[in-house]
Amino acid sequence: PEDWTELDQRAVDTIRVLAADAVEKCGSGHPGTAMSLAPAVYALFQRVLRHDPNDASWIGRDRFVLSAGHSSLTLYLQLYLSGYGLELDDIKGLRTWGSATPGHPEYGHTTGVETTTGPLGQGLANAVGMAMAARRERGLFDPDAEPGESAFDHQIYVLASDGDIEEGVTSEASSLAGTQQLGNLTVIYDANEISIEDDTHIALSEDTAKRYEAYGWHVVTVDGGEDVQGFLDAVEAARAETDRPSMIVLRTVIGYPAPNKMNSGKAHGAALGAEEVAEVKKALGFDPEKSFEVSEEVLAHTRSVAERGRASHEKWQIAFDAWADENPQRKALLDRISARQLPEGWTDALPAWEADGKGIATRKASAEVLANLKDVLPELWGGSSDLAESNNTTMKGADSFGPESISTGMFPAQPYGRTLHFGVREHAMGSLLNGIALHGGTRPYGGTFLIFSDYMRPAVRLAALMRVPTIYVWTHDSIGLGEDGPTHQPIEQLASLRGIPGLSVVRPADSNETAAAWKAVLEKTDGPAGLALTRQGVPTLEGTDRAGVARGGYVLAEASSGTPELVLTATGSEVQLAVEARKILEAEGVATRVVSMPCVEWFDAQEDDYREQVLPSSVRARVFVEAGIAQSWHRFAGDNGEIVSLEHFGASADYKTLFNEFGITTDAVVAAARRSLSSVRSG
Amino acid sequence: PEDWTELDQRAVDTIRVLAADAVEKCGSGHPGTAMSLAPAVYALFQRVLRHDPNDASWIGRDRFVLSAGHSSLTLYLQLYLSGYGLELDDIKGLRTWGSATPGHPEYGHTTGVETTTGPLGQGLANAVGMAMAARRERGLFDPDAEPGESAFDHQIYVLASDGDIEEGVTSEASSLAGTQQLGNLTVIYDANEISIEDDTHIALSEDTAKRYEAYGWHVVTVDGGEDVQGFLDAVEAARAETDRPSMIVLRTVIGYPAPNKMNSGKAHGAALGAEEVAEVKKALGFDPEKSFEVSEEVLAHTRSVAERGRASHEKWQIAFDAWADENPQRKALLDRISARQLPEGWTDALPAWEADGKGIATRKASAEVLANLKDVLPELWGGSSDLAESNNTTMKGADSFGPESISTGMFPAQPYGRTLHFGVREHAMGSLLNGIALHGGTRPYGGTFLIFSDYMRPAVRLAALMRVPTIYVWTHDSIGLGEDGPTHQPIEQLASLRGIPGLSVVRPADSNETAAAWKAVLEKTDGPAGLALTRQGVPTLEGTDRAGVARGGYVLAEASSGTPELVLTATGSEVQLAVEARKILEAEGVATRVVSMPCVEWFDAQEDDYREQVLPSSVRARVFVEAGIAQSWHRFAGDNGEIVSLEHFGASADYKTLFNEFGITTDAVVAAARRSLSSVRSG
Repeated sequence: PEDWTELDQRAVDTIRVLAADAVEKCGSGHPGTAMSLAPAVYALFQRVLRHDPNDASWIGRDRFVLSAGHSSLTLYLQLYLSGYGLELDDIKGLRTWGSATPGHPEYGHTTGVETTTGPLGQGLANAVGMAMAARRERGLFDPDAEPGESAFDHQIYVLASDGDIEEGVTSEASSLAGTQQLGNLTVIYDANEISIEDDTHIALSEDTAKRYEAYGWHVVTVDGGEDVQGFLDAVEAARAETDRPSMIVLRTVIGYPAPNKMNSGKAHGAALGAEEVAEVKKALGFDPEKSFEVSEEVLAHTRSVAERGRASHEKWQIAFDAWADENPQRKALLDRISARQLPEGWTDALPAWEADGKGIATRKASAEVLANLKDVLPELWGGSSDLAESNNTTMKGADSFGPESISTGMFPAQPYGRTLHFGVREHAMGSLLNGIALHGGTRPYGGTFLIFSDYMRPAVRLAALMRVPTIYVWTHDSIGLGEDGPTHQPIEQLASLRGIPGLSVVRPADSNETAAAWKAVLEKTDGPAGLALTRQGVPTLEGTDRAGVARGGYVLAEASSGTPELVLTATGSEVQLAVEARKILEAEGVATRVVSMPCVEWFDAQEDDYREQVLPSSVRARVFVEAGIAQSWHRFAGDNGEIVSLEHFGASADYKTLFNEFGITTDAVVAAARRSLSSVRSG
Repeated sequence: PEDWTELDQRAVDTIRVLAADAVEKCGSGHPGTAMSLAPAVYALFQRVLRHDPNDASWIGRDRFVLSAGHSSLTLYLQLYLSGYGLELDDIKGLRTWGSATPGHPEYGHTTGVETTTGPLGQGLANAVGMAMAARRERGLFDPDAEPGESAFDHQIYVLASDGDIEEGVTSEASSLAGTQQLGNLTVIYDANEISIEDDTHIALSEDTAKRYEAYGWHVVTVDGGEDVQGFLDAVEAARAETDRPSMIVLRTVIGYPAPNKMNSGKAHGAALGAEEVAEVKKALGFDPEKSFEVSEEVLAHTRSVAERGRASHEKWQIAFDAWADENPQRKALLDRISARQLPEGWTDALPAWEADGKGIATRKASAEVLANLKDVLPELWGGSSDLAESNNTTMKGADSFGPESISTGMFPAQPYGRTLHFGVREHAMGSLLNGIALHGGTRPYGGTFLIFSDYMRPAVRLAALMRVPTIYVWTHDSIGLGEDGPTHQPIEQLASLRGIPGLSVVRPADSNETAAAWKAVLEKTDGPAGLALTRQGVPTLEGTDRAGVARGGYVLAEASSGTPELVLTATGSEVQLAVEARKILEAEGVATRVVSMPCVEWFDAQEDDYREQVLPSSVRARVFVEAGIAQSWHRFAGDNGEIVSLEHFGASADYKTLFNEFGITTDAVVAAARRSLSSVRSG
């Protein structure tokens, strides 16, 4: 650019030297991309992004997502140079214990990091979710403003690598971004054609630009990472494109200007080596004897972006305050959901059911909950990855989210709509939900069959790691799915999801527990939760308890004597078996308690006293019942306990046959109880 | 086609009526696609596929993969009409207990089913693997034949649905298929634009044909499912295209000719209802009062395909026998690997290491195993999803698999090469490995970081369900990965993979256990196995034992007294901690045994006696050590046992710091041992 000064160039070169030095000091890391992308990303932070380094959570900011998380230095160095709080010592502390600069950017750990990235593809897909959330939030708060005139209008920028482009989750998300016509989204694809296995041509020959055009994107190519003006022009063109997402294919030379290692896999994921670092410094006019050299002029120059950011923020604030004055109710809604608070009395809307032997499927109870919450919680929105009718995730009467042109006979769409249609793209769904929850205060949910939680697992794990409150509606939660057979029947999924630290897996026993589960999930804002719901009908039980559900486990039916000799613990559709078994055992004189334990994680979080009260350590005769593998129950069972479980794949048949053939029955529970009692008595 | 007879048309209409009847009888299922695709798939089985219904495992056959597994009737009805063994009663038994016609096609369950499908996207990705395997096998057995002239030349056909196209795994696999120039692959994309959420435009607006062109595919569009000639012309064009995979976009009307439900989501995944079924029959000239009506003429006509198949097989056999005569060594190799046998004395090639405190990383030991096996086991091939240098999966001196044009400075490629480059596409890797293992007798392996097993989990599960012997090289198997931080450190993965029924998770303690693990994995042919290998160096231990590894768990170091008071059990890099802890405890007079348990699944498969011998039930003082969640160890621990584990996410730092900070140390093992001993003594 014409006004590109020597200080700008020196700042860019400083970034390169710091990237090389930081990786060299740590002994591992990714210097190459941080070096080659320095001009573009510097230009982005200094001249393009609307951001305020003194207020990283300013809701009017543009978002910058580093999908190429391995190039964390690309982001850390901008946060340092822009003045987000990182200092040179933090850069020196790259990838060390307790530092603000971990190997990959972590949301909630380093100010200015919008999402945790590293597992490839996630950042780009998160950003698609953010772009969708931006539109939905605008629709909630300022639907009538002219395009570009609202305080809620801003841009989402993503930096993606070859690896991001190869991952299927970005294909899913990008196809959907095209359908959604996300004009507020710009992906900068760093097409350096080098990955860990060196030249990407060994595995990547597609015409990516054409592929994105096929998705309906606007695509521009910029040749050369040093062409800052070309890059800025492309960004401007992307911003001008309001009806399509944009991709800027930026052809860079990884590791530039390292004389011997640039443009090779050696510059990607390892320290360059002292000699090569010295060569870089020489080439850029830095003292090869010095490390981490940053001149005061450069830092003062780059940190002046904070003043421009403050000015931009102040200008925005005037428009925002005017909006707030004119829209007090919307402002109150914004404040409420930004604080992740729920409205007074909202639980009055939750449905309740009378005890009833026939009952209904918990997925259907969930549908009633959603229908009842529709008007009470405008922040709640979501959909399914093409299983809406099975997952029962559509709120009655809600429009679909999308341009009007994608409306179908069944689903009228409008840009600010509420029902999400992910297509058969479970992985993207998971990542998009993360992006939506990260962007603002809305509460997104996404549905699929429980078995297909496997397809979205990397995104679920990141939700847990980031502690964002996404909600999964996983229906058809056991062999109760029936005829579709073993490919569709979850066996190990409940256990394997419970293994993810920080994820709440909630498997309500009946309709009332389902309402209670939704209540508890919505009240929980510090991490993701998945509801495991039945396809098949389950009786509406006596004795279910909202507070008990929120505590994860509780006494559903006490031993008639008041002092149990045996405790039967079950989840979901198997609680009814425990209830029936209790009757038989009580009739035989065994004082039997039934514990419903919809959420092991919540139960674990209770105080010792409560847990001891529900599952007294003195009662060694214990049976656990769940139509899945036993793995997560052994720790409760103890030496005398028994587990009624399923340790093999399912089969294709009606569900009643399957429960019988596989021995998940009242009789099996009674038999297990007798074994456990006998073990205690003989032990 | 000109020679399309009334009987052909009647057969097609019979398929439609049977599809409607079968779903109606069961009460659930997917009639629509089986109806609309009847002409094309009938034409494919009758006129295109080289197949022999009397020999479903004929290695010269074309493969047909039903990626749209929900439309299982599409396949079952062809298997019935072609005479693969299914009879009308099997069709009537659709989706019922014990039937040969489960909800989704299951490999190994129904003759003629090439792979288990249903989870969308998997079949198409499997087929890409099959097409790659076909080329690799040709290279092993008949490399010099002219194109199309070898007994090992055949075609892979796939039928894919809108859902398959939406799933990211097909994007990954299709991009790679373009790079690999798989001219033997044809995907028929049933573009009916209807999925469960009805009109797909609500979630799918991309230009799929253009997207596949961007991948480098040959794409033809055929308008109308009734245009059999157009379809056959497209198939012919696809076959003529030998340097690119082909996609035939076949625009059909789902549920045709059901008058009220065709072209809607109602025809997709539910019974049509008696009235609508009657209407279909009337429209097609069938008696609406009759069900499952198949005329003898139709059946005789369709089953004549078996004669043509036999003739084709016989002609092929002549060529094959000539090849066998000329290539006795190659024939012997074919026979051996087709029987999944290993050559005499192959284990002599396995490396061994002297006990050594410094040792090496198990991923590096694995590299030595692969290098040593290169010439002994030509059936072994594989690669990595862009982590070859980290996973150490490249056999030294092996060419890469691919057209010569994709060769890079680091990797020379040739069509019959051996090293696979999946790109950053873990999910496709998993599915491709399944396809390779299903296609023939080669043994494929694929590497990535253990954390990214999450990305490939749906494919791993299907490998287990199908019992195919794929091999995963999952390195960087704990917080030992170090600086990359929590996004890259597996915590719950070992437990969650152990949850998959039929998958062997093998975590060797050192270099010698790594060689033993490879031996046992290669000898196991009835299911998939994953090797969990360290990034960091681990000592080469005294006392490791090949037979013990194959049994899953064994006594690595006996209590000095010969009668243990305490047993320390560990896996992988934590075995060294148990060994060190034993020294301290023995010095304190505690008779301490160390058990190495590289594979819980194999240990479980041993006889009771052996397991009792290794972990005597009388020894209640027990400690289990693994740098991951405890979930899979509780069942062994018992009331007095202790588990040294990690119940939270990792962090970014050097690995030694992480092990110390997170308490996975010798001291922690000793402390846990004291707690367990004290619990036993006080109990």
